[in-house]
Amino acid sequence: MSSTRDIDALIEMMAKLPGLGPRSARRAVLQLIRKRALQMEPLADLMTSVAATACECRNCGNIGTQPVCDICLSNERATGQICVVEDVGDLWAMERSGVFKGRYHVLGGTLSALDAIGPETLRIPKLSERVESEEVTEVILALNATVDGLTTAHYIADQLDGRCRITSLAQGVPIGGELDYLDDGTITAALNARREV
Amino acid sequence: MSSTRDIDALIEMMAKLPGLGPRSARRAVLQLIRKRALQMEPLADLMTSVAATACECRNCGNIGTQPVCDICLSNERATGQICVVEDVGDLWAMERSGVFKGRYHVLGGTLSALDAIGPETLRIPKLSERVESEEVTEVILALNATVDGLTTAHYIADQLDGRCRITSLAQGVPIGGELDYLDDGTITAALNARREV
Ligand SMILES: [Zn+2]
Ligand SMILES: [Zn+2]
Repeated sequence: MSSTRDIDALIEMMAKLPGLGPRSARRAVLQLIRKRALQMEPLADLMTSVAATACECRNCGNIGTQPVCDICLSNERATGQICVVEDVGDLWAMERSGVFKGRYHVLGGTLSALDAIGPETLRIPKLSERVESEEVTEVILALNATVDGLTTAHYIADQLDGRCRITSLAQGVPIGGELDYLDDGTITAALNARREV
Repeated sequence: MSSTRDIDALIEMMAKLPGLGPRSARRAVLQLIRKRALQMEPLADLMTSVAATACECRNCGNIGTQPVCDICLSNERATGQICVVEDVGDLWAMERSGVFKGRYHVLGGTLSALDAIGPETLRIPKLSERVESEEVTEVILALNATVDGLTTAHYIADQLDGRCRITSLAQGVPIGGELDYLDDGTITAALNARREV
């Protein structure tokens, strides 16, 4: 590499992002340097600002820039319905489909004996709490159709049994598939065809 | 999108980078937020610093952080041999192969009647100047094997005719191929098998 240390370091850091390898990181950095005022400076500023302000909603686990997120604060979202997702990427996927009008609960993963991830790590006690405090009538489990996702769904269904309606996304989620890879139409179909657990 | 404006804007800017689309930009931003101290803050700082310092070498057109780049300043690089490339990505590709020990001249594109790109835009007068001032004995044309690349190679060969040896990468560069896509071995083979124009 002939470039100076900072440029090399920048390429190396960019190459760690999902979706970018060393080669596309080099292309990205060259483009950024060429479009310095239009792309690189605004991107650096935004990144600095997001790094300083991004935080998890203390109610639902969504990422925002305030202690409680826009969705939890919104008057336009139905109370009484909570959609449980594994991570924020899945929440964004649900939001893009535009079909769900309630609130979310982001687990931050799935139960995993192997990785020693238990209910406390996953905000499951907080979910249980919200079912009471927000007078929830339905919990929609929108977890990935993986073994760990199904295990987690069953565990949550057991915990909340008898306290509210518990449904899960059904039709349209392929076996082994991950929500974030589905198109909006599939997510809409899966939500509309949700069934009792 | 449920995220606040800065996060949305960051995703949108990231999605403009080569190699990243909207989906991988979302993944990248989520990862950055999760690894804030380890990835996001250093990346933002590096980007700010590179945006402030990156510049083109006034001798060869390479990107560095000083008016004249490391390669042009180095005592360990052979004088007398200049390798002409289209852009900095190609220079980096040559450097990764490690086979070339001389200096570079980055054109910044190829001649193109269609896009009205003439010799002046491409630092060709500067190349001609360097052939005298640096007592160059060989100019190696390492341009992409595209129509515009070949046109540019012929133009430069005409301009420098009789003033020094003029060679071009030959064996190993596929027709229509671009240098930056080649593996190091292919670049090495192409350089070793270079021929007179
Ligand atoms: Zn929230
Ligand atoms: Zn230079």
